[in-house]
Amino acid sequence: MKVPFQRLVRFEDPDGNILFGEAPAGDNLVGQQVAIYEGDKPWSLRESPSHAKVAKVICPLPASPLVYGVGLNYSKHIAECGYPTPEYPTSFIKPPDALVGPYSDIRVSKSHPQIDYEGEFTFVVGKDAKAIESKHAADYILGYTVGNDVTSRQWQRVPGIGTNYGKSADGFAPIGPILVATDVVDPDQLELITRVNGKERQRSGLDDLRFKAGDILAHLSRYNTIREGTVIMTGTPAGVGAFMDPPVWLKQDDVVEVEISSIGTIKNRFLFA
Amino acid sequence: MKVPFQRLVRFEDPDGNILFGEAPAGDNLVGQQVAIYEGDKPWSLRESPSHAKVAKVICPLPASPLVYGVGLNYSKHIAECGYPTPEYPTSFIKPPDALVGPYSDIRVSKSHPQIDYEGEFTFVVGKDAKAIESKHAADYILGYTVGNDVTSRQWQRVPGIGTNYGKSADGFAPIGPILVATDVVDPDQLELITRVNGKERQRSGLDDLRFKAGDILAHLSRYNTIREGTVIMTGTPAGVGAFMDPPVWLKQDDVVEVEISSIGTIKNRFLFA
Repeated sequence: MKVPFQRLVRFEDPDGNILFGEAPAGDNLVGQQVAIYEGDKPWSLRESPSHAKVAKVICPLPASPLVYGVGLNYSKHIAECGYPTPEYPTSFIKPPDALVGPYSDIRVSKSHPQIDYEGEFTFVVGKDAKAIESKHAADYILGYTVGNDVTSRQWQRVPGIGTNYGKSADGFAPIGPILVATDVVDPDQLELITRVNGKERQRSGLDDLRFKAGDILAHLSRYNTIREGTVIMTGTPAGVGAFMDPPVWLKQDDVVEVEISSIGTIKNRFLFA
Repeated sequence: MKVPFQRLVRFEDPDGNILFGEAPAGDNLVGQQVAIYEGDKPWSLRESPSHAKVAKVICPLPASPLVYGVGLNYSKHIAECGYPTPEYPTSFIKPPDALVGPYSDIRVSKSHPQIDYEGEFTFVVGKDAKAIESKHAADYILGYTVGNDVTSRQWQRVPGIGTNYGKSADGFAPIGPILVATDVVDPDQLELITRVNGKERQRSGLDDLRFKAGDILAHLSRYNTIREGTVIMTGTPAGVGAFMDPPVWLKQDDVVEVEISSIGTIKNRFLFA
């Protein structure tokens, strides 16, 4: 869709005002002066002559009506799971309270078992979409971002319990740090890397994605209106903790970074209490 | 939770004002004068000395943040599905646009295959709930109502696609006609009946529910804040169209009624276009 920004950052200025601005390249935005956009909804911003200083980068969306996740979308991850390749995107829903910012601590209940990361290419819908075709999807996409589809593997695997349950906890969908307009990058040229405490765990080109953003939006909107502000995580590549030998789960103070080239890096610390 | 009403109806008066009122017994509320409640959110209503005439009964909630469904919760339905009895509630999510009123037409895409009904005992959360115990659930429940968890069986059964997909279309969660306060009825004493074009298809006492409202709310709120206004459908008894021999799907102009004794009846016509 037509947007005034190239790389949109939502931030607090030194006085605590929450603003939208144009992000310069690079991950370290704090302390920089940026051009700001007027408006409080990211899909209806207007250019402005003003600038402001970034004190803190926060979630690119104030809220989201719904977060969708897609499973089994990278060929190597499908192979490590041992599942057949799905004919349609495998989708699930994370509730709005899952959404948190790019550098938020993720507070997990001590009793929540087998917590794992899933670094994911993520996009945000900026215009209500119903029964759209894949080739028109870019008209509805506000921007691309980075996400972590945090998952409790134990709950995910309870027979019959439903995929949502292990994926739905408060704080289980950090995204950011910025939204990149669809005409600024070609996802097929980008690479995703996930690190835990600095050690690489996942690395894949996004060109290995079986269902692209447009395919997923066309599928999800077939019978259901996908509302502006909806966040869609597109699936994770090989290398999650569940398929390490032996499996490795996230523990107190672990820091998970998900980086996508030309978009940026989210970095979340896990706190169990 | 403490509420001023016993049986809450949301309605339009003859001037088109949308109001909340106390519903007299019986399904035929149109034309009746009812005591009205002040407020625009059903969980923060106040008594009032005013009355108004019901011109049209509408969805008891203006909107909902999320609709949850539960599968496999009646022993006879578990048997007809041929599944093992689940240890925890099987849950899925229907998006907010699924919600419609008790007498709304349900407009289904012509290309949407194998549409089926699921008459369900349904409750509405009236207070944000996180990690609550089953025995305290009544403090969070605004009221009981009747729902139809409309489902596309074909999409529900595509391997790996995820349960949500076949349950998520716009309009696939009619509820109503009223909300009954938790201290007015004992669900275990109630009976659910579903009729298609007047012919009975489902009939079960709610005492056959394996997981009660409190068990479900405790489970769903374990790691995730369940917000006020959330609608929770508790599962369907035996007798859905999918398990008739041969299976029977809903078709143009079919009228599905779901009745629960002491609550009321929803009645929705299906239109395919």
